[in-house]
Amino acid sequence: MARFKLTIEYDGSPYVGWQRQKTHRSVQQVLEEAIPKFAGETVTVHGAGRTDAGVHAMGQVAHIDLSKEFTTDKVRDAMNHFMKDEPVSILLAEEVSDEFHARFSAYARHYIYRIIDRRADLTFDRNLAWRAMSPVDADAMHEAAQCLVGKHDFSTFRDAQCQAESPVKTLSKIEVIRDGDEINIYVSAPSFLHRQVRSITGSLMEIGRGKKPISWMQEILGAADRSRCGTVAPPDGLYLSQVDYPN
Amino acid sequence: MARFKLTIEYDGSPYVGWQRQKTHRSVQQVLEEAIPKFAGETVTVHGAGRTDAGVHAMGQVAHIDLSKEFTTDKVRDAMNHFMKDEPVSILLAEEVSDEFHARFSAYARHYIYRIIDRRADLTFDRNLAWRAMSPVDADAMHEAAQCLVGKHDFSTFRDAQCQAESPVKTLSKIEVIRDGDEINIYVSAPSFLHRQVRSITGSLMEIGRGKKPISWMQEILGAADRSRCGTVAPPDGLYLSQVDYPN
Repeated sequence: MARFKLTIEYDGSPYVGWQRQKTHRSVQQVLEEAIPKFAGETVTVHGAGRTDAGVHAMGQVAHIDLSKEFTTDKVRDAMNHFMKDEPVSILLAEEVSDEFHARFSAYARHYIYRIIDRRADLTFDRNLAWRAMSPVDADAMHEAAQCLVGKHDFSTFRDAQCQAESPVKTLSKIEVIRDGDEINIYVSAPSFLHRQVRSITGSLMEIGRGKKPISWMQEILGAADRSRCGTVAPPDGLYLSQVDYPN
Repeated sequence: MARFKLTIEYDGSPYVGWQRQKTHRSVQQVLEEAIPKFAGETVTVHGAGRTDAGVHAMGQVAHIDLSKEFTTDKVRDAMNHFMKDEPVSILLAEEVSDEFHARFSAYARHYIYRIIDRRADLTFDRNLAWRAMSPVDADAMHEAAQCLVGKHDFSTFRDAQCQAESPVKTLSKIEVIRDGDEINIYVSAPSFLHRQVRSITGSLMEIGRGKKPISWMQEILGAADRSRCGTVAPPDGLYLSQVDYPN
C-alpha cells in the first residue's frame, strides 16, 4: 500500500463545500468518485481543511492510500481524466510516508481573499471574487489588520458553529495589497477558526469603505464578542492557497 | 437624440458570438434586450467588430442612439442591472457626437490570446484560456511572429468564410510574453481578417511545441496559401482587448 499527497485546485462555486454530504455535491465526493475508476477500489480522501460552500482552493492538500502500485504521474493524470467535467484538478501527486497526514501534519495554512472594486458587475471573475461597487481603501485595511498579527482571542471573528476547543489562535501574517482594481488579502496561520478569514475580511471592509476608523479593528478584537464583527464576507472571494508541511 | 459609446466586457463562452442570430443567443442580443427595459425603446447595438462563438472581450466597443435623455452613469448602471444574470458588463458609457461610429471610426484593434501550459486541466480559467499540456517555448514563438509585422498578404491566416475584399492587412504589433505558466500573445492592427489571430496563434503553437522551426512562420506567410496554416487555435483563449478611436 502506498500513500499519496495530492495538491488540489478547485472552483468551489458549484459545490456544497469540501466535505462530503448526503444531499449535495462536494469536492471530496468528486475526488472520491474519480479514484475507483482507475484504482479499482474506493478510498477516503483526507483533506487538510474543510472549505465552506462556494470557497475555492489554489492549493488544498489531501492524502489517499492505494493498494495497487501507481506512479505519481498516473495518479494525477488518471484523476484529472475522470474529473474532466468538474472544475477540480490535481496539480501534483507525490508519494509520501504513511506518517504523513494531510490534516495533522500541516503546520501552516495560507488563504487569499480577492476583492475587486469596480462599478460594473464581474464577468470573468463571477463567483471568483467579491465585487465592491465603490472604491475601497486598501492601505487603511492593511494598517487596521496589523493588530490581528500574533496570539489573540479571536471570538469576534469566530462563527457560532465553530467546533474548535479554544477561540485563541495565532495569526502569522495578514497583508492587504492592491493590484489595479483588485485588492488581495493574504492571511497565514497554523490553523484557523471557522469563518475566521471571512469574518476578518468583512470587518476590514467596513474600514476600507470608510464606515469605521482604522482603530475600530483593535476595538472589536479586544471585545472578544461575536456581535461586534462586521458583516461576514461572501465565500466567492476566498481561496485556500497553500498548506505547509515539514520537509 | 443622443449617441452613447459603450465599452463592454464579456465572457463569450455561453454565446454564439457577438452577432445576433435567429437560433442561438448572442452578446448583441443580450445588450439589445437590456435597453428597452430602461429606455422604453428598441435600438440596434452597433459593435466595433464581430467576435466568434466562445471568443471574449475585455474592451469591445459599441454605440447606441437613445431618444430620451439619460446620464452616462444611468445608461451604464441600468444596462448592467438588466444583464446581471449574464457574463456581460458595460465598463463605461460615454456620450459621443453622432459622427462617431463604433465600427467605422475605429483606427486600431487589439487582441490578446491567452495560453496556459500546465499538465492539469484548468479550473478557474475553464473556457477562458487555451491549455497546453506540454511546455511551450514562448521565446521561439515571439521570434517567429516578428516576420508578420507590417503589410502582408495574410491568405495563409484567413478563414475560408472571410468576407474582406483583400487578404492584405497591416499588423502593427505582435508580442508573445510569458508570465508564470501563462503565455500571452498581444496582437494589434487597424483591422483583421476573419480568424486571423486564431490562425496565427495556432501556427505559432506548432513552433512553440517544437514541431516546426522558427523559420517556418516566414515560409507559410510567404506561401499565401490557406492549406499551409497550422491548426486554428480554439476560441477559448481569445479576447478583443481594446479598440482605438481618434481623440
